[in-house]
Amino acid sequence: MVNLKETRLKEVKGVRIGNDMGVDELVRELRGCAFGAGRLAKAVDIYEEMLNEETTKFLGIAGALVPAGMRDIIAEMIRERYVDVVVTTGANLVHDIIEALGDHHYKIGEVGVEANADTSVDDVWLREQGMERIYDMVVHEEAFARLEDFLRAVFEQFTRKNRDKRYSIKGLTKAIGENLSDRDSILRTAVDSDVPIFCPAIADSMIGLHAWIYKQTNDLRVDAFDDMKELIDIFCEANRTGAIILGGGVPKNFIFQTALIAPPREEQEGFDYAIQITTTTPENGSLSGATLEEAKSWGKIGGKAKAVTVYCDATIALPILMAAVRERIARGR
Amino acid sequence: MVNLKETRLKEVKGVRIGNDMGVDELVRELRGCAFGAGRLAKAVDIYEEMLNEETTKFLGIAGALVPAGMRDIIAEMIRERYVDVVVTTGANLVHDIIEALGDHHYKIGEVGVEANADTSVDDVWLREQGMERIYDMVVHEEAFARLEDFLRAVFEQFTRKNRDKRYSIKGLTKAIGENLSDRDSILRTAVDSDVPIFCPAIADSMIGLHAWIYKQTNDLRVDAFDDMKELIDIFCEANRTGAIILGGGVPKNFIFQTALIAPPREEQEGFDYAIQITTTTPENGSLSGATLEEAKSWGKIGGKAKAVTVYCDATIALPILMAAVRERIARGR
Amino acid sequence: MVNLKETRLKEVKGVRIGNDMGVDELVRELRGCAFGAGRLAKAVDIYEEMLNEETTKFLGIAGALVPAGMRDIIAEMIRERYVDVVVTTGANLVHDIIEALGDHHYKIGEVGVEANADTSVDDVWLREQGMERIYDMVVHEEAFARLEDFLRAVFEQFTRKNRDKRYSIKGLTKAIGENLSDRDSILRTAVDSDVPIFCPAIADSMIGLHAWIYKQTNDLRVDAFDDMKELIDIFCEANRTGAIILGGGVPKNFIFQTALIAPPREEQEGFDYAIQITTTTPENGSLSGATLEEAKSWGKIGGKAKAVTVYCDATIALPILMAAVRERIARGR
Amino acid sequence: MVNLKETRLKEVKGVRIGNDMGVDELVRELRGCAFGAGRLAKAVDIYEEMLNEETTKFLGIAGALVPAGMRDIIAEMIRERYVDVVVTTGANLVHDIIEALGDHHYKIGEVGVEANADTSVDDVWLREQGMERIYDMVVHEEAFARLEDFLRAVFEQFTRKNRDKRYSIKGLTKAIGENLSDRDSILRTAVDSDVPIFCPAIADSMIGLHAWIYKQTNDLRVDAFDDMKELIDIFCEANRTGAIILGGGVPKNFIFQTALIAPPREEQEGFDYAIQITTTTPENGSLSGATLEEAKSWGKIGGKAKAVTVYCDATIALPILMAAVRERIARGR
Repeated sequence: MVNLKETRLKEVKGVRIGNDMGVDELVRELRGCAFGAGRLAKAVDIYEEMLNEETTKFLGIAGALVPAGMRDIIAEMIRERYVDVVVTTGANLVHDIIEALGDHHYKIGEVGVEANADTSVDDVWLREQGMERIYDMVVHEEAFARLEDFLRAVFEQFTRKNRDKRYSIKGLTKAIGENLSDRDSILRTAVDSDVPIFCPAIADSMIGLHAWIYKQTNDLRVDAFDDMKELIDIFCEANRTGAIILGGGVPKNFIFQTALIAPPREEQEGFDYAIQITTTTPENGSLSGATLEEAKSWGKIGGKAKAVTVYCDATIALPILMAAVRERIARGR
Repeated sequence: MVNLKETRLKEVKGVRIGNDMGVDELVRELRGCAFGAGRLAKAVDIYEEMLNEETTKFLGIAGALVPAGMRDIIAEMIRERYVDVVVTTGANLVHDIIEALGDHHYKIGEVGVEANADTSVDDVWLREQGMERIYDMVVHEEAFARLEDFLRAVFEQFTRKNRDKRYSIKGLTKAIGENLSDRDSILRTAVDSDVPIFCPAIADSMIGLHAWIYKQTNDLRVDAFDDMKELIDIFCEANRTGAIILGGGVPKNFIFQTALIAPPREEQEGFDYAIQITTTTPENGSLSGATLEEAKSWGKIGGKAKAVTVYCDATIALPILMAAVRERIARGR
Repeated sequence: MVNLKETRLKEVKGVRIGNDMGVDELVRELRGCAFGAGRLAKAVDIYEEMLNEETTKFLGIAGALVPAGMRDIIAEMIRERYVDVVVTTGANLVHDIIEALGDHHYKIGEVGVEANADTSVDDVWLREQGMERIYDMVVHEEAFARLEDFLRAVFEQFTRKNRDKRYSIKGLTKAIGENLSDRDSILRTAVDSDVPIFCPAIADSMIGLHAWIYKQTNDLRVDAFDDMKELIDIFCEANRTGAIILGGGVPKNFIFQTALIAPPREEQEGFDYAIQITTTTPENGSLSGATLEEAKSWGKIGGKAKAVTVYCDATIALPILMAAVRERIARGR
Repeated sequence: MVNLKETRLKEVKGVRIGNDMGVDELVRELRGCAFGAGRLAKAVDIYEEMLNEETTKFLGIAGALVPAGMRDIIAEMIRERYVDVVVTTGANLVHDIIEALGDHHYKIGEVGVEANADTSVDDVWLREQGMERIYDMVVHEEAFARLEDFLRAVFEQFTRKNRDKRYSIKGLTKAIGENLSDRDSILRTAVDSDVPIFCPAIADSMIGLHAWIYKQTNDLRVDAFDDMKELIDIFCEANRTGAIILGGGVPKNFIFQTALIAPPREEQEGFDYAIQITTTTPENGSLSGATLEEAKSWGKIGGKAKAVTVYCDATIALPILMAAVRERIARGR
């Protein structure tokens, strides 16, 4: 609860739109606003501080952000060290590989076709055409055939190289990245940039399915818990820690729970910074929708942490966040 | 339903963030994305076309956008004729007057206080302090006392001037605007720019409450239906019609229903363009959440209209939309 | 904020499902649950107390509840005085009249057809077939033609009877009800049961459209503010006041704002009881999604009021609420 | 897309509330409704058919349903074979163990305290008191200390018994269940009833954290992919398959993806029946919110499957579903 007696109240100041506004210029205008606008502006301020304060930054990715067009931006965040650790769903890695292998996702509908029409398609007919749908996109099933061949080759090389056939999930994502030549790929960029990619629910993805098929006739052992040591070590060794959570799900909790096991620091336990971008609200009681305040009761986020939840489609909020922060960092403010 | 056979599929193209990006530059990058990003970019394209095609533009405003900081942007849309007609909830007018009279809305919480904390306040204590809350803002009750004095003076002048004491709601909003000296006010700007402001549910607001109090001892007659003629005439006389709907509610339907009564044109019935920015989804069956496709079955939107729904907090999407469109119009593209 | 020191914490107790459970029996099981289940059970307890405590009960209706199948239940609430005052959107009255005149709403899709398919229809084709869509229902345009004839006859009789041609909106809804012979109709039942029906945004509906058409050639004056006196008087004369809010919108605020103008009572200002059933969450900052706590800062709801928000589709929660409360009242508990 | 030409349209029939209604009696009344009510009634019909047609039933559980009071109902579904396979998040298992060990979850707030107040607590203060919050509940940290001791004992026994120290995740959930004496426990009931419990993201839970701690000094190998074989075998050997998905997340996709790898059957590929209860809508593009129609384009759900999504808090919809279905099965219809 905010103690309004101790808090200096700030006037809401309206946005004014100028000519040829820069993204950060617009974000600065949003600072004076309430609701989502004010929160987005606050997220930029927190991220800027995170980047200026020698913070180890954990990125959580859930939702089909890669096929929706956020692949380049995430790869760039890794490449330029806007993030130091990535925890993601398997699906985002699958679609990263699909694009790395030269396949594409396609938008249903054109400018001129009504927006909602782009999700009103006959899915049984799509099935017959060999097109799989993700909301307003489709991907051809041939892309998945190419994915299968690629993954099989990786698994083979993987087990050839490694005598005891034991891997961590992170070891697996790294091996996949090493085999991708597309330098725009998230997985490849992570290898090049020495950023670990964790994927605790990897079994719940096409990578998992093909790993299982491979295991039917080969020895491939991937441990469900091995990654935790590295993730926890990274947390413990950090001076300061920050989380950027896109969309909740397993990545959100997997990042936050590292703070539960880490020994408390001098100053505070839990993450020092947290930004959450989500459309899930707390009222359904899910962890995805849980507030960052609630996370403080668990010690996942420090009592004095700087934290904000932006209730917004991440495909809108993430590009704005990155464009604004990038400009600030470039200007050395 | 989209016929994918006849539709050229477009590849999803990822966003790339450059240095010092302009807002429109970013929006152009979003064009290749799916989900909200693609829809927001499409909204900018549709609005640009609307502005270039001699379209009569109807703006619907629901939700507490004015107190949240969208007052200046809406006033500017009116002043620079990005919109030609406004339909709003009463609350947005009330808060416009409050600011015009020199009072303010205050944000709860500062950067450094957790985001959700700004809504976890003791509302009974707020009541004792004379502060009324709107999500993460408060307004002092003195502001409402000043509002009351102002409105009473307007009503008095109103009934003095006008012999038969009969007004339309639009006449009332105009009279209020004429009495405001703040040229940043939406109501005053609308008067200055000759843009009518309709408010069909005005009884459901502080303006309504004070009108009722005034009526207890004075003769003031405001007709519930008089405005419809003017709104319908504007629709019928337009070459092309476009709707920008912020948040649903009564303004959304009141704008769309004008198309039901207008005689069909040569080319098509219903609105030619529509942009809807909302966080309400269709699954609850409300008109607020209804898709623009559904509106076509009613003839509210033309079968070939260009239309898009952006599922996003309007305090985020509206500033982006306006900054991007303004830049395009300025550059004469 | 709840002071947990002063609050006895209650264990969550799981639901157990028995054979042939009654609705109230199930609701009693839900009492021990958290999230929506606990809130729904609490709503039943609050409603039961409201009914046992000589409370004047205000019902707010927004969203297309009447066409979705809630017409009989609402009529029954009026007939059996589970509510004493109704505030609704115009659309719900329009669809009540349509059914009263013998027309129907039709569900798209059958058992056996996938659920979401029932909203994936070609709306342009529907338009050609003369069918208007409301989410997963359609209504034929002939129903609206019959509505028009009926309303015209009502308006004619209305203006014939009444010399000065001045009406309140409530007077209009009453006149409509008097002309309906269907005793299952909400409007007719309200007349028979002497329950006033207020509809502050009536202009925003087919009733408004046809009133406007009629006004083009006839004298019909309906005052936008006249109803407020009666509504406020009802509030002021009540011993205790309770609100059942289905879905937010104008009806929610119109009901709550009556408390703003009423002189404070001895015990407390604002509503004594409030139940809100909605799928809109507070994060978008709209009044529809505003918490009942927030309403306390305005004095709309009393500081010690019993109040609960159930985040649930009203077509699910309302029948459960009514079945459970009815059973309790019948048993005299 | 529904072809309305071929579809018999059904009139919406209103709900009528009688005295002492049974849950199934009410659900039958809801059949004639649109929106959520109609969908919930359809879910009951589909579940009834599933149970009568020798269907192998997969239950997916995401969201904090166990601490919210759904533990007994889920245990009963397992015990009475309303489900044959369970896929869950780790958190639901953690909270099942906590209750099995004699600890409790506590609801914040009492009847009489405003509903939303129960989530407006000072989380930093809660942290100091050793209470962790889940929306409107808290759990004491001592419960987690007991959990740790218990899990450590299970892991020790586990590795003592098993020479090569290799386990599947399902093997781990089974071993935990065998060590719980509480016959109301989900994990124990699953062991007693021979229903496998899969938990693909088990690393993302307190079980995962304690497994990792144990691994630091002991040899414990849990394979990330081993479970998939059993799950896929169950799918392949089934005559008919049905999915009941509560809340999306990893369990939803993990269940559906089994259909991707199974060889197509004679009649159809994919699940034959599917019921999804969720508050996440498709507009955010997440897999959690994806429609069951979309799943058909992937072959996860058969083109002619009977399927429905109920947009509702599962703590409300699940008890109704179970009470109604149980009554029908009991009556042998």
